[in-house]
Amino acid sequence: MKINGTPYRSVWRDAADPRLVHIFDQTRLPWELDILDLKDMDAVAHAIRSMQVRGAPLIGAVAAYGLAFALDRDPSDQGLHAAAAALVETRPTAINLRWAIERMVAHLKPVPPGERADAAYREADAICDEDVEVNEAIGRHGLALFKELWDGRRPGQERLNLLTHCNAGWIATVDWGTALAPIYMAHDLGIPVHVWVDETRPRNQGALLTAWELGAHGVPHTLVADNAGGHLMQHGNVDCVIVGTDRVTRQGDVANKIGTYLKALAAHDNNVPFWVALPSSTIDWRVRDGMQEIPIEERSAEEVTFVHGLNEQDRPARLRVTPKTTQAANPAFDVTPARLVTGLLTERGPCAATAEGLAGLFPEQARA
Amino acid sequence: MKINGTPYRSVWRDAADPRLVHIFDQTRLPWELDILDLKDMDAVAHAIRSMQVRGAPLIGAVAAYGLAFALDRDPSDQGLHAAAAALVETRPTAINLRWAIERMVAHLKPVPPGERADAAYREADAICDEDVEVNEAIGRHGLALFKELWDGRRPGQERLNLLTHCNAGWIATVDWGTALAPIYMAHDLGIPVHVWVDETRPRNQGALLTAWELGAHGVPHTLVADNAGGHLMQHGNVDCVIVGTDRVTRQGDVANKIGTYLKALAAHDNNVPFWVALPSSTIDWRVRDGMQEIPIEERSAEEVTFVHGLNEQDRPARLRVTPKTTQAANPAFDVTPARLVTGLLTERGPCAATAEGLAGLFPEQARA
Repeated sequence: MKINGTPYRSVWRDAADPRLVHIFDQTRLPWELDILDLKDMDAVAHAIRSMQVRGAPLIGAVAAYGLAFALDRDPSDQGLHAAAAALVETRPTAINLRWAIERMVAHLKPVPPGERADAAYREADAICDEDVEVNEAIGRHGLALFKELWDGRRPGQERLNLLTHCNAGWIATVDWGTALAPIYMAHDLGIPVHVWVDETRPRNQGALLTAWELGAHGVPHTLVADNAGGHLMQHGNVDCVIVGTDRVTRQGDVANKIGTYLKALAAHDNNVPFWVALPSSTIDWRVRDGMQEIPIEERSAEEVTFVHGLNEQDRPARLRVTPKTTQAANPAFDVTPARLVTGLLTERGPCAATAEGLAGLFPEQARA
Repeated sequence: MKINGTPYRSVWRDAADPRLVHIFDQTRLPWELDILDLKDMDAVAHAIRSMQVRGAPLIGAVAAYGLAFALDRDPSDQGLHAAAAALVETRPTAINLRWAIERMVAHLKPVPPGERADAAYREADAICDEDVEVNEAIGRHGLALFKELWDGRRPGQERLNLLTHCNAGWIATVDWGTALAPIYMAHDLGIPVHVWVDETRPRNQGALLTAWELGAHGVPHTLVADNAGGHLMQHGNVDCVIVGTDRVTRQGDVANKIGTYLKALAAHDNNVPFWVALPSSTIDWRVRDGMQEIPIEERSAEEVTFVHGLNEQDRPARLRVTPKTTQAANPAFDVTPARLVTGLLTERGPCAATAEGLAGLFPEQARA
């Protein structure tokens, strides 16, 4: 997508030095457009852990380059497996990370060590290109959904009100985004979409990234505290909730940014459709019960007790927002049970959030 | 309650000058213990609107002194009614404000104008003293509830986990608090309570006031993002939710700080008891359907787009937390339907959140 008219992806190889990969430092957005150089695996692991890159699909893509960097140094079987293990451990909840690394390992293992690094860069490129295609397909399927909602609008309804949580936009993927892809497409086609953007405490990805993305593209939106969504739905001000996800189980349970479950409950209580957009790489076919089987990352308490933003001098700064003695807890994700999910929006189209729904779209995976 | 060992109320008359009333500037807490002088009605109206005083019961008490100030200047019938009307309009959702002003007017109207101001100060004092008694009674009834929960604890359970939203502590009332009153009492009696404190965006009353209050009294607590409560309940980490309220309808619908409804949904979905603590002055006997009949205050967008806290130099400061072009909406309250409320905890004891439940405890009001 474009920033000030210039098209970007969220991760790309340097034009002059193909062993150099660039990302935006997402901990500095939207205040600074800081492009980072990644050229070794440690930098990649740090970027993932510190959330310089975040968003389940993007984490997978960047990790793939991390494996390529590692193979430049040690292309042996041992080097391959050690690097894969180290990268998979950088964050626990998003499954695309494991998916990307397993795909890389399966592809590279039969390749002679001397050719592995080159093959790894090419495969990481392929993962990136496919992510863009997949998200574009998700966008088209979601667009059909929004068209249907708009065609069924109430008399006098002036806009299609969507609500999203966290950031599932182009900056969370290689391009397009998942939940935001159909929103961009609908806007471009002239459907008068308006997005309620959840702030998404504690890291404020909604206020910082989603509001910035939508603003840069010109999509009408309004930031709200995470607390506001239920009230908006009670009063008929939300036509559809659409979010991304970090891991979907084979029966359709959805792990996503903390607070997603609360919005799903409110949507269910008010008969508002609740859709989850995902590339199929987000489905963890090995697990069934999301509440029991998906590990939930506990992050630093400082993400709750300090807030980042621009100070009165327009400089990035941080503030303590609670007494110094206050302890905080920071579970980063929650699991929305499949029963609360209207449907899953994948690159192959929509399906019910059930084992049957997913197996119907991905029979080859469901059988495996 | 005590601050550093010294007992305080949240509003009190000056010892030397009985026409001077003091409050804490709650917009500066917990960073600064700034005691304000109130001596005219405009200062009271400003204090309420700007949230220097907040909390439904405290707003009522401070407004009562505001009326006394006005009568010092103009004790005529016209002066009484004009001041009452101006004070009632300062904030729309909390009903204790109207209750206090109507009580004052009913009491003062038969009083000869020359004696009205003195009578008004005495009646405002009575409202304050009664608030303290009422909250103590709420505390005792809630304590019985917590004892019962603790007696029924799971084998090996080490603490009674409560969750609260916003601030319904002593600083939201004249003393004791509503939802926090039984928590203080349970802690003092040796029940090992632990409180999950919702941050309560956008104004962060949980992080700033509740965490400060509980910390000052030594009650174990953990601050969490508003998004975390559902996850905590899904995993059995909350034994009871208890909140205050700004207005309860005669059928038991509950208006409270934005986001309360989301926690009630999560409590219901996980069979966690959801209690609402209130003085009976919070019941609006004139309205039935909270969703349709309670006005919801829309506050400034800047409460969402800016955050207040302590900067790196330990000075109070504010940060912008979203791009300058981002618009925000800020509904300040939501309505939790009675069907999601386990019970109401009043000064006369607990009751079901139903018309029958409330009429059973307050037959004289229900008939009126």
